[in-house]
Amino acid sequence: MVALRIPSLSLFTVTAAAAAAARPLAGSSPVPSHLLRRRFRRLIPKHLASISSEFSTHSAVEKAQSPPLEEEERESEERRRRRKEGFISSRSQDFNGWYLDVIANAELADYGPVRGTMVIRPYGYAIWEAIQDYLNVKFKETGHSNMYFPQFIPYSFIEKEASHVEGFSPELALVTVGGGKELEEKLVVRPTSETIVNHMFTQWIHSHRDLPLMVNQWANVTRWEMRTKPFVRTLEFLWQEGHTAHATPEEAEKEALQMINIYEKFAYDQAAIPVITGRKSKVETFAGASRTYTIEAMMGDGKALQAGTSHNLGQNFSLAFGTQFTDENGQRQHVWQTSWAISTRFVGGIIMTHGDDTGLMLPPRIAPIQVVIVPIWKKADEKSVVLNAALSVEKELKTSGIKVKLDDSEQRTPGWKFNFWEMKGVPVRIEIGPRDVSSGTLVISRRDVPGKQGKVFGVSMESSTLIAYVKDKLDEIQSSLLQKAITFRDSNIVDVSSYSELKEAISQGKWARGPWSASDAEELKVKQETGATIRCFPFEQPSGTKKCLMTGNLAEEVAIFAKSY
Amino acid sequence: MVALRIPSLSLFTVTAAAAAAARPLAGSSPVPSHLLRRRFRRLIPKHLASISSEFSTHSAVEKAQSPPLEEEERESEERRRRRKEGFISSRSQDFNGWYLDVIANAELADYGPVRGTMVIRPYGYAIWEAIQDYLNVKFKETGHSNMYFPQFIPYSFIEKEASHVEGFSPELALVTVGGGKELEEKLVVRPTSETIVNHMFTQWIHSHRDLPLMVNQWANVTRWEMRTKPFVRTLEFLWQEGHTAHATPEEAEKEALQMINIYEKFAYDQAAIPVITGRKSKVETFAGASRTYTIEAMMGDGKALQAGTSHNLGQNFSLAFGTQFTDENGQRQHVWQTSWAISTRFVGGIIMTHGDDTGLMLPPRIAPIQVVIVPIWKKADEKSVVLNAALSVEKELKTSGIKVKLDDSEQRTPGWKFNFWEMKGVPVRIEIGPRDVSSGTLVISRRDVPGKQGKVFGVSMESSTLIAYVKDKLDEIQSSLLQKAITFRDSNIVDVSSYSELKEAISQGKWARGPWSASDAEELKVKQETGATIRCFPFEQPSGTKKCLMTGNLAEEVAIFAKSY
Repeated sequence: MVALRIPSLSLFTVTAAAAAAARPLAGSSPVPSHLLRRRFRRLIPKHLASISSEFSTHSAVEKAQSPPLEEEERESEERRRRRKEGFISSRSQDFNGWYLDVIANAELADYGPVRGTMVIRPYGYAIWEAIQDYLNVKFKETGHSNMYFPQFIPYSFIEKEASHVEGFSPELALVTVGGGKELEEKLVVRPTSETIVNHMFTQWIHSHRDLPLMVNQWANVTRWEMRTKPFVRTLEFLWQEGHTAHATPEEAEKEALQMINIYEKFAYDQAAIPVITGRKSKVETFAGASRTYTIEAMMGDGKALQAGTSHNLGQNFSLAFGTQFTDENGQRQHVWQTSWAISTRFVGGIIMTHGDDTGLMLPPRIAPIQVVIVPIWKKADEKSVVLNAALSVEKELKTSGIKVKLDDSEQRTPGWKFNFWEMKGVPVRIEIGPRDVSSGTLVISRRDVPGKQGKVFGVSMESSTLIAYVKDKLDEIQSSLLQKAITFRDSNIVDVSSYSELKEAISQGKWARGPWSASDAEELKVKQETGATIRCFPFEQPSGTKKCLMTGNLAEEVAIFAKSY
Repeated sequence: MVALRIPSLSLFTVTAAAAAAARPLAGSSPVPSHLLRRRFRRLIPKHLASISSEFSTHSAVEKAQSPPLEEEERESEERRRRRKEGFISSRSQDFNGWYLDVIANAELADYGPVRGTMVIRPYGYAIWEAIQDYLNVKFKETGHSNMYFPQFIPYSFIEKEASHVEGFSPELALVTVGGGKELEEKLVVRPTSETIVNHMFTQWIHSHRDLPLMVNQWANVTRWEMRTKPFVRTLEFLWQEGHTAHATPEEAEKEALQMINIYEKFAYDQAAIPVITGRKSKVETFAGASRTYTIEAMMGDGKALQAGTSHNLGQNFSLAFGTQFTDENGQRQHVWQTSWAISTRFVGGIIMTHGDDTGLMLPPRIAPIQVVIVPIWKKADEKSVVLNAALSVEKELKTSGIKVKLDDSEQRTPGWKFNFWEMKGVPVRIEIGPRDVSSGTLVISRRDVPGKQGKVFGVSMESSTLIAYVKDKLDEIQSSLLQKAITFRDSNIVDVSSYSELKEAISQGKWARGPWSASDAEELKVKQETGATIRCFPFEQPSGTKKCLMTGNLAEEVAIFAKSY
């Protein structure tokens, strides 16, 4: 079987840009090649010429080693056939195959007809809705209003902020025809909205009394990625993007931190994902930001997933667009801005954090179905008794706000249903048979504790007892999943004090945490030689003096290096 | 001042198609001209050749008479200047100017940088959220799941259903460049999703057990309209589109009717818009549908707004895409489908139904702010007393679920605030001054009853009394707005029994209701000669035998004719 190696985002970025620059376009190039080169240059600064050439060679080799798209397609045909038989690859042996099998079998998503696009199916979308429901409330509580900006952005806007255009040009989808006519100016399908937001902010912000201006939108965005993976990286994805403007740099910084904290709290409390929160290195900072904060999650294969980011944009966009206000002294000033986003990628993070060989495992607080009831009967006369009991339990749980599903279909055996709903990751299963009904009890099974160990017999059907019991159980599962993920995370982070230790840790698929004060060039060398990037300088820092693992110079902070999605 | 005449949607449709067909494109035409012609032909069937030519001439004249886009822009500059002074045009003298002024002053929306696009600002978006919140619950209650389909559709998909391509080809936005490369197949930015939905349905539907399949998505859509108007017709807009597949035509018909009924109930109960529900004529049926149901709302200027539609698609798309299932007898059958949609256009309908010369007037159930509290003080020592009382009233109302805003800014006088929040359409205003505080009372004003008549003094501040009073008042306003709209609607529908009566009614800006069994050609003649189209054959029909107003033949139904947005 051909291995599907997904290069880290940053590695990929360069690969794609290099490939695009190397491949001459048929006809006129809609993205000027100097832009592609510029992007390339930005990631590999001038003073790193020698590394740059090695790097691009290395990338080319990487590219040659990874299978062409057609092979992926063929593999996916083969996979599709096996999936029809309900097959799920072994998580430990083929993590990527397992991931794709789970997405298909649990009906979370499907491939769209256009390469790299994804159809989010109801069960997957319901997880996204749970993410939305929580965050939307938090955004409003902290003073943000939802609104909507158009998705078509004049091409000239993208060119206004230098590092922004370098970052996004190679990934743009362009509308060139509208209403049967060639357009005078190409339109960019938004890859992110900072440019159009600033264009509008200039019209709405006049005085300091108009600040802070704090908005958010739930929207689709498009980035023309070459290597895609459902949820994790798709050509079009859904997200929320917050945009704020402030009168002072301190306020903007406070806002950027507030929002990354909201993301962190969401990850821990709702998704049971123990992210590491921190600051991105200069090399990894968002194209157009002064500072990027991130939550980094460790997936089941040890790779990092950037699960949410919050940017302090400084005055980069306000200077480019002339977004100004008159301050209290009558002086014109440029605003200080932030932007922050979480996307459907997070759903991928949930799958890859909690799943097991059986399939999906969902934290109760974001599970579309928290409890599934499977009625069990053999003889016809048992059926109505059992079903009536099941219906009444369903009703009671629903009334108390628990998301419950009664699977009363007669097409499938109870055993088939057990497997099916375990694969779908439902946290709690309730079984009700004829004997249970006569004793006024039922059986409760936990998804996260397999076999008999996770099974409790004789739980009372009495409404208030049962509801309290189930709610307790859901809470227990929620914290148990978080605890398990914390244990996994901590046993896979290695403290390193030298480059050789770092290489060793990375080669074992772990995260390396060590003091770092070396240059951008050295950071890129690590990436080139190990495939790992600085995921962040974590907010939680060890005390004491530290020496840079690479140079031996004094280092103020430790950084975390890891391979990433 | 140049008048901004917005032609009716259908009139416009032909104008745009004709214009596009007449104007040769620079370079290669991305939409083959035979498609444009085909669309043209569909609206003017072959057997109407003579009318067709007159019609297209008429359209061309219409086009010449309406101002070119640049003039509109200049007018909008002038308007912008006046708006800065808070100016709102007279609703009765310049309905369109009034509409645009209200949208700008109430900060509902703004123009995007790309012609025809709209930025939905927080206050306008909050109205859309109220629409979403209500409908989303109803959709789920009736068994639909939310999901998400990609917005990029291969061009070949659009061509599969004949009347669909005729209907939509002239309005498409095409992505031709992705990731710096010319694409092999152009991608359509979805104008609606029936084609991609069917492509996916073929993969998910196998047996009758997979039916009914009932999904919905909240999404943005793009239609390259030439004449745009905020909310009512924009190049990109937000909507929900429901898509269902059923085993029998009866189930599909039942679903299409159920959904138009949900829309109707929403319009009456939430938006206080007394829509007329009915069936579209064949000429006005959605491109690709067998039958279209509609809710038609009467705007303040007497024009009709198609505010929501539900389509019985029959097997049109399932035949084109091969969407089949195996029935209980093992036979392969094509599914029967529906689709239904409500869009941000509805926000325009709310503005144009309830507003007055003062500005917006929002029905309490969809108002982002239901109650505004304006504290009034003169001396410094009154301030804290009044503000404390206002804060406690705010808290009590908020706790009881009322959407309340305390305007405690010191930049503006109470009088300015009264005007401002009236213009923003807030249903109830509470005034609290020092004397009110000492008597433990406050003043309540209704937005919908101007002056002293709408004002009640001495309402008790005591929590439970106040909350009950405010809730009562909100209910009263809600039903009063609906009643007013019903009265307006009914006084502007004229029963006609001849074509001359119809012409008379239309020329007075009214709706004409009369028996109709004439041909498509005669329907188009009415459109050509009066500008009015059949809005619907209403579900509510008078009893007794009827004679067609045009031909004198027996007619089974009355139709409603009106000019429309």
